[in-house]
Amino acid sequence: MSNKIVTFGEVIMRLSPPGNRTMKQSHEMEFFFGGTELNVASSLATMGCNVRHISSVSDDFVGESAVSFIKSFGIDTTFINKNEHPLGLYFLEVGSSVRASRIAYNRLNGSFANIKSEQIDWKKALEGCKYFHWTGISPGISESAYESLKEGLQTARELGIEVTSDPAYRSNLWKYGKNGNEVLKELVSYSTIFIGGVNEINEILGTQFSSHKEGFIEACKELKQQIPSIYKVFDKIRIGVTASSQQTQGRALIEENYFETELLEVNPVVDRIGTGDAFAAGLIYGLINFDDEKALKFANAACAIKHTIPGDINYCSTEDILEVMNGDSGGRIKR
Amino acid sequence: MSNKIVTFGEVIMRLSPPGNRTMKQSHEMEFFFGGTELNVASSLATMGCNVRHISSVSDDFVGESAVSFIKSFGIDTTFINKNEHPLGLYFLEVGSSVRASRIAYNRLNGSFANIKSEQIDWKKALEGCKYFHWTGISPGISESAYESLKEGLQTARELGIEVTSDPAYRSNLWKYGKNGNEVLKELVSYSTIFIGGVNEINEILGTQFSSHKEGFIEACKELKQQIPSIYKVFDKIRIGVTASSQQTQGRALIEENYFETELLEVNPVVDRIGTGDAFAAGLIYGLINFDDEKALKFANAACAIKHTIPGDINYCSTEDILEVMNGDSGGRIKR
Amino acid sequence: MSNKIVTFGEVIMRLSPPGNRTMKQSHEMEFFFGGTELNVASSLATMGCNVRHISSVSDDFVGESAVSFIKSFGIDTTFINKNEHPLGLYFLEVGSSVRASRIAYNRLNGSFANIKSEQIDWKKALEGCKYFHWTGISPGISESAYESLKEGLQTARELGIEVTSDPAYRSNLWKYGKNGNEVLKELVSYSTIFIGGVNEINEILGTQFSSHKEGFIEACKELKQQIPSIYKVFDKIRIGVTASSQQTQGRALIEENYFETELLEVNPVVDRIGTGDAFAAGLIYGLINFDDEKALKFANAACAIKHTIPGDINYCSTEDILEVMNGDSGGRIKR
Amino acid sequence: MSNKIVTFGEVIMRLSPPGNRTMKQSHEMEFFFGGTELNVASSLATMGCNVRHISSVSDDFVGESAVSFIKSFGIDTTFINKNEHPLGLYFLEVGSSVRASRIAYNRLNGSFANIKSEQIDWKKALEGCKYFHWTGISPGISESAYESLKEGLQTARELGIEVTSDPAYRSNLWKYGKNGNEVLKELVSYSTIFIGGVNEINEILGTQFSSHKEGFIEACKELKQQIPSIYKVFDKIRIGVTASSQQTQGRALIEENYFETELLEVNPVVDRIGTGDAFAAGLIYGLINFDDEKALKFANAACAIKHTIPGDINYCSTEDILEVMNGDSGGRIKR
Amino acid sequence: MSNKIVTFGEVIMRLSPPGNRTMKQSHEMEFFFGGTELNVASSLATMGCNVRHISSVSDDFVGESAVSFIKSFGIDTTFINKNEHPLGLYFLEVGSSVRASRIAYNRLNGSFANIKSEQIDWKKALEGCKYFHWTGISPGISESAYESLKEGLQTARELGIEVTSDPAYRSNLWKYGKNGNEVLKELVSYSTIFIGGVNEINEILGTQFSSHKEGFIEACKELKQQIPSIYKVFDKIRIGVTASSQQTQGRALIEENYFETELLEVNPVVDRIGTGDAFAAGLIYGLINFDDEKALKFANAACAIKHTIPGDINYCSTEDILEVMNGDSGGRIKR
Amino acid sequence: MSNKIVTFGEVIMRLSPPGNRTMKQSHEMEFFFGGTELNVASSLATMGCNVRHISSVSDDFVGESAVSFIKSFGIDTTFINKNEHPLGLYFLEVGSSVRASRIAYNRLNGSFANIKSEQIDWKKALEGCKYFHWTGISPGISESAYESLKEGLQTARELGIEVTSDPAYRSNLWKYGKNGNEVLKELVSYSTIFIGGVNEINEILGTQFSSHKEGFIEACKELKQQIPSIYKVFDKIRIGVTASSQQTQGRALIEENYFETELLEVNPVVDRIGTGDAFAAGLIYGLINFDDEKALKFANAACAIKHTIPGDINYCSTEDILEVMNGDSGGRIKR
Repeated sequence: MSNKIVTFGEVIMRLSPPGNRTMKQSHEMEFFFGGTELNVASSLATMGCNVRHISSVSDDFVGESAVSFIKSFGIDTTFINKNEHPLGLYFLEVGSSVRASRIAYNRLNGSFANIKSEQIDWKKALEGCKYFHWTGISPGISESAYESLKEGLQTARELGIEVTSDPAYRSNLWKYGKNGNEVLKELVSYSTIFIGGVNEINEILGTQFSSHKEGFIEACKELKQQIPSIYKVFDKIRIGVTASSQQTQGRALIEENYFETELLEVNPVVDRIGTGDAFAAGLIYGLINFDDEKALKFANAACAIKHTIPGDINYCSTEDILEVMNGDSGGRIKR
Repeated sequence: MSNKIVTFGEVIMRLSPPGNRTMKQSHEMEFFFGGTELNVASSLATMGCNVRHISSVSDDFVGESAVSFIKSFGIDTTFINKNEHPLGLYFLEVGSSVRASRIAYNRLNGSFANIKSEQIDWKKALEGCKYFHWTGISPGISESAYESLKEGLQTARELGIEVTSDPAYRSNLWKYGKNGNEVLKELVSYSTIFIGGVNEINEILGTQFSSHKEGFIEACKELKQQIPSIYKVFDKIRIGVTASSQQTQGRALIEENYFETELLEVNPVVDRIGTGDAFAAGLIYGLINFDDEKALKFANAACAIKHTIPGDINYCSTEDILEVMNGDSGGRIKR
Repeated sequence: MSNKIVTFGEVIMRLSPPGNRTMKQSHEMEFFFGGTELNVASSLATMGCNVRHISSVSDDFVGESAVSFIKSFGIDTTFINKNEHPLGLYFLEVGSSVRASRIAYNRLNGSFANIKSEQIDWKKALEGCKYFHWTGISPGISESAYESLKEGLQTARELGIEVTSDPAYRSNLWKYGKNGNEVLKELVSYSTIFIGGVNEINEILGTQFSSHKEGFIEACKELKQQIPSIYKVFDKIRIGVTASSQQTQGRALIEENYFETELLEVNPVVDRIGTGDAFAAGLIYGLINFDDEKALKFANAACAIKHTIPGDINYCSTEDILEVMNGDSGGRIKR
Repeated sequence: MSNKIVTFGEVIMRLSPPGNRTMKQSHEMEFFFGGTELNVASSLATMGCNVRHISSVSDDFVGESAVSFIKSFGIDTTFINKNEHPLGLYFLEVGSSVRASRIAYNRLNGSFANIKSEQIDWKKALEGCKYFHWTGISPGISESAYESLKEGLQTARELGIEVTSDPAYRSNLWKYGKNGNEVLKELVSYSTIFIGGVNEINEILGTQFSSHKEGFIEACKELKQQIPSIYKVFDKIRIGVTASSQQTQGRALIEENYFETELLEVNPVVDRIGTGDAFAAGLIYGLINFDDEKALKFANAACAIKHTIPGDINYCSTEDILEVMNGDSGGRIKR
Repeated sequence: MSNKIVTFGEVIMRLSPPGNRTMKQSHEMEFFFGGTELNVASSLATMGCNVRHISSVSDDFVGESAVSFIKSFGIDTTFINKNEHPLGLYFLEVGSSVRASRIAYNRLNGSFANIKSEQIDWKKALEGCKYFHWTGISPGISESAYESLKEGLQTARELGIEVTSDPAYRSNLWKYGKNGNEVLKELVSYSTIFIGGVNEINEILGTQFSSHKEGFIEACKELKQQIPSIYKVFDKIRIGVTASSQQTQGRALIEENYFETELLEVNPVVDRIGTGDAFAAGLIYGLINFDDEKALKFANAACAIKHTIPGDINYCSTEDILEVMNGDSGGRIKR
Repeated sequence: MSNKIVTFGEVIMRLSPPGNRTMKQSHEMEFFFGGTELNVASSLATMGCNVRHISSVSDDFVGESAVSFIKSFGIDTTFINKNEHPLGLYFLEVGSSVRASRIAYNRLNGSFANIKSEQIDWKKALEGCKYFHWTGISPGISESAYESLKEGLQTARELGIEVTSDPAYRSNLWKYGKNGNEVLKELVSYSTIFIGGVNEINEILGTQFSSHKEGFIEACKELKQQIPSIYKVFDKIRIGVTASSQQTQGRALIEENYFETELLEVNPVVDRIGTGDAFAAGLIYGLINFDDEKALKFANAACAIKHTIPGDINYCSTEDILEVMNGDSGGRIKR
């Protein structure tokens, strides 16, 4: 349990009509707790890691349920505080085949959006931490979320913690007045490992690299030059054939070396939310336990198998993921 | 269809774990659309009235579903506009017997809280309207909701429309800086019919009448004296024996005359939300179709039967309600 | 297995929104198979009797499912034939407390309504039969159902079979041109045991006895005088306090002797459909296995306990019923 | 709202065990309201059109629920009357892959089968109407349904209304004594736009054209020659690969010009019922808003996307359909 | 967190058809994890206590789910080991009113029955523990469960830990050859607080005290004389009016002093399983935080409110329980 | 009904979270009754055969429900006895695509494991029997199950009954001390028809034939040589592409003649449990009604279509299977 991992981010509730129904056709909804960084935390805890999650939830029975859910993974919730704002949530209508899924958010005035940096004793929260993980969602939600994260990142760097960043830019966030790409660039500069690809690099740097292999390599080099603290770049490629089938692949640039994994195919897709987070969790697990190339393969397998799990979180064990990684994914029943 | 009724208020989604489960014990929730004024509108439409509801909903599939739901009653939705804020909602854990129900709200930054008075052409919206109904919930949600309502009330008075007010004070609202009781008193002064009792009068006037019959009569007189536009007062008394059984009674002061109905008992209670709104709808229907005393009895029966319907809205027909009013409520099966 | 019991009647499907929802509030319905005579058959089979049911079902997967359901009780289905008409069904909205339940039927052009007497070899069907049970529902559905039943009754009498009749008159039947009360009187004249009370007797005989004890005794005597084949009368009294609570009592006139049972109270009522059929089944079982007075008490206990079982059929064993009969009905858990 | 569309046809309830279960394996059923012409109406209303539906439903809570459902689309229900017959319904066991779906109907004695032409004031019902849509289902249900439709068609032609016909012949209808193909030919002669292909033309005309492109063109020409009021023919081709995957294509003959669309593939199919109706609705919408070729493409995309929606009705917006039409149908999530 | 509480006992799964259905009427079952000692642990953890549970679960995904569930309360699971035997479980058909609930067990060859004392380092497991709780279920399951518990009790006594015992005797256990009452007497002799009443004392001591107040006092004195380590006796009285309503009361003998609480009534009962465990948890919480008399009242209120929670475990907070204790249990909604 | 078929084996309950959920994500489970030999029996009964099943179930309401389920197929349950041990069961988490399904068993101490040979009067049980079917599961469960089966097989051979054997070896059984392969070889020596392939032959004979066609033929010849009572060998090949798609093929060696069927593809797979049993049932039906080659094709089609049915049992009729066999398996709806 010496390799403690700390994550920071919103705890969000997903509400979804059953099956492929639209909300108009429904009188009930399934719900799941998740959140991009919590998804990473939960998957890591399921794989046996020692994980702490930092967040702010609502001071009501909804927030209590969320914390209880997080505890069920054995995640340390000491640094999840509560405030009087409602828990963030989103509605999802699940598409299929030619019909895309649709999401409607309710998060910008929620408990995480109102998190206050002064409520977190970052020194204490990061004590003993080896890996700190953040994503581009948190700083897009509100200014105070951005400030809290920034303070956390600064503390992490001071403490010499490995920082993994997944700086996805989402255009439906960033309503509070800051320029998303500038903020993300600033925050990446506190990070050591970049989980992202050409799109993310182009957004942050304002460059226009192409998404092919050569473009990816050049983009990584440019990134490392502009932000020297980054020394490893890992990218997940998800090719959505239809809303019901998917291909996944990982690639990486470690120092001068380019790696890529096989393409894994998932058909049918049970749930495509949280598959990038499953990749990130698989990667962090892999970096702790394997070499970089195997870590990438493991991350890609984790990403693939998550597509078969309902909800935001990858409930699969390392054994499950290793089987997919080793190509043992036919129609078996494990008795 | 000449007696058009207009209501104004939030469209809110209720989310509730099935049965008496707590949220921690659940993976799905039932949902219902409602809202105190919409509940009145829906019940009136179910009874055959010509009803328009004015509101603001989210500009996403959640708001679309809400509007579709409202249309299913035949309610005119022309004056429901859309904005970029999420639909208000609340979570409900349903108690039983000695355990109270619990509610957690998420409404203060929603689409109705952000309604803008200038978006409503009140003259047009109230065209042909005979009754305009409002409650104390709307002005407690946000300043712009208060302002919209006030403009509506002023227009209604100018047009000589009968205004029914249900000025319940809720302490978990009124977060935007106004004094709730003062605002409610101001708004009641635009009304002609007061639906409420000693508690509501005491809150608005700052008086301390007792809740017994004599206190009620004195309180009504004081109310009429201070707010002369009020000429009828109707009160619903709901005596919660346990979370699972309930007694309801109506009383009224019309000019100098005091009326009261029998006590109706409901056991078990299926759902206690919206029972006051069922009373208000029954009352308005009664005022249009019956004399005052029968209207009160009809309202009380409507209140009682609503306790047997899941969700916020009274789906019962006038025939159903008349049967309860006439004491025909034994264990029948209507084939 | 020597005491074979034969029943004749419609197999009907019940469709019902979950809980106390109205159909407008639902996207799914629970379904149950039943039918007043089949309910008697199923309860008797559950108690270990040798039972055959005679009917006509639809020649499609709905009819197949119904037959499969009937077989699950071990009931002999050899004499259930199939035709091209749809299976009869009804919709039920379940009331509660002051709200009555509502039923909408779809049975008058169904497979049972189109049963043909010539399709039934009554001699063979009644071979070895000791008890034949019929109700007033069947002859009210259609002329061919009436004719089939009449032929069955004639055969039963020729074979000296005990015939139990439950000649309830339902005003929503009898659309095909016959006078219900006349037909019922005719058919009762082929019977030996009358399950019914003052209402049923008054309807059949055109009399106006009162429903009190004395009226019951006089009515029974009049019945026996006019229809001498009847030598025992058993009546169930169900007093519906509300849609959610119920009292049951049995009374009987055997020769000159009047019996009555204690009043049993059921609160809350889970399902009130089929409780009269549970009484009839309990009575027939009791007549076979006990003396008349104990049979009546057993029937009343069967009627009471059926109120706790969802659906049309009493799934309780003789042991369960005997416990209720013996007053052992507190809040136990049988481990 | 000037382009009013009127539809005429049965409102039918679909009852289906959940998932791929057989009825024998189920205790509950999902239900949906639909009906081939109502499906067209609902889809058009969802796309923003001004629609009226004409029908007859049961005078009970089932019929009320159906009307409430229809109103939820904003469809005008003024010309839906009620009678004492039960609402038509069907049971569906949903197949998968190599197993076909199975349907059992209960509609031939229902409320629509008993519709009376004299109950409909066709002049008033068609006031302001630009498009009247009918299908071959209605006249196959009963003689009075046929007569009502015929009167409606005659009125429509007198009023110069565009009449779209989808004259599918179903062998499990037409039990009341008329020759289906003759009736359909008669009714098509009141129409201006033919939605159907070689099969439908062969059935109506008694011809034997082949289903290939050339056959289609010749068949259309023959149809136009025999029934000169028809001036446009649009055909949907649905190639069922298995019960779980499907290909759709549209083709048309407008004057001398043949058009065809790309083949769209849907895998997996969520629901294949109502996909032809989605085509018809898309086509009518397209004819009002686009040119003929784009209308055909839009109709084909509407047909394809309907395969992803549970129930009979296409809940997709014009934006959703346009995306599919434009090939933007990969594995997206719309946030 | 200094008052650590340790519990020892089986983790068992409950499987139950929905509502009041029998298993024959169902295709699905709700499941809950529980177990008499775990119920105590979970309730204490919900009230904010520091709790460890010791047990053995199956080494498969069922056992993993159970552990995840236990973690969700924040309970320490370090001393829950795994073996190759299946998790114990039971089936429950939920009765109502006059129908009793029925249970069928599958636990005697499960993972807990196969727990091995040598797998538990009791010294370490009880480190820092203030209260150790056991019940009469564990030693009745198997000899090795008995031996493990005995070793735990001996260690607890050596360490001077307060030991609460709930030595209920269940006749459907004790299949492995030991005399239950003798074993229970032996194990009680390692305890300091006795949770039980006249029945339990009579069973253990072979006495025949009556259940009235005087009998209770005498029985307690006899118990204290025979087993001097016991210095407090607390008893819960649950009077089952029907399967749907219940009365609860607590009484105690502390030194020479007799206390009793008011009678609390619960109607309807949602779930009666685990109500005794809720009493025990409330009592332990009360003993830590209140004086003995208030502890008894708190325990009784906890017992009462548990009847309103589905499943085995009391999810209520101390605030919820205090409200019931203070008589504030009417039909409220907490907003 | 002269061709009576008798099966012998465990009745087992399957419990499974809904959809593709893991148990941790669920609060309810679907349940099905099945068991490899019962699956064969049920499918044969569905196809109209006269079937008896011999087993031992629990003497509680779980066992009663199982028997009721078996009766629903019209299977003779006279020789199913009851004992005090719990019914065997297993939990299933349903995988998808790259994720395998997982099973956890609870059967080794259940009612079937405790079946006693002396409780079965094999002579009587096999009276009139033409085919007796057994599998390798039963003798792996317990010694007494093995002994019961052996006695049954000896009796069957004495009576000259055709014995079909499906001697699959499961490594998670055989915990009671016997060598599985030796026992299976012994029991096969009482059989006449071998349902299995190269794997099964290699396991029984200790040989190492390859799985290709030539290997299969040689293996069959070796089997016939070592066990001369076997005169026909039928093999099912199921190629699991992923957990969601599957290919099936049959092959056989009858005397010197090799047959094989086409490959049938099923995508998506609804349920892969019991597909081998569907093959066996289809084969036995085919051997009774068709020639060997057609029997093999019919068995393969039965195996394919079972993949589309939830639960363990093939609910398809002979007509359904013949359609698949004849290649008529596109996307149809049978109205």
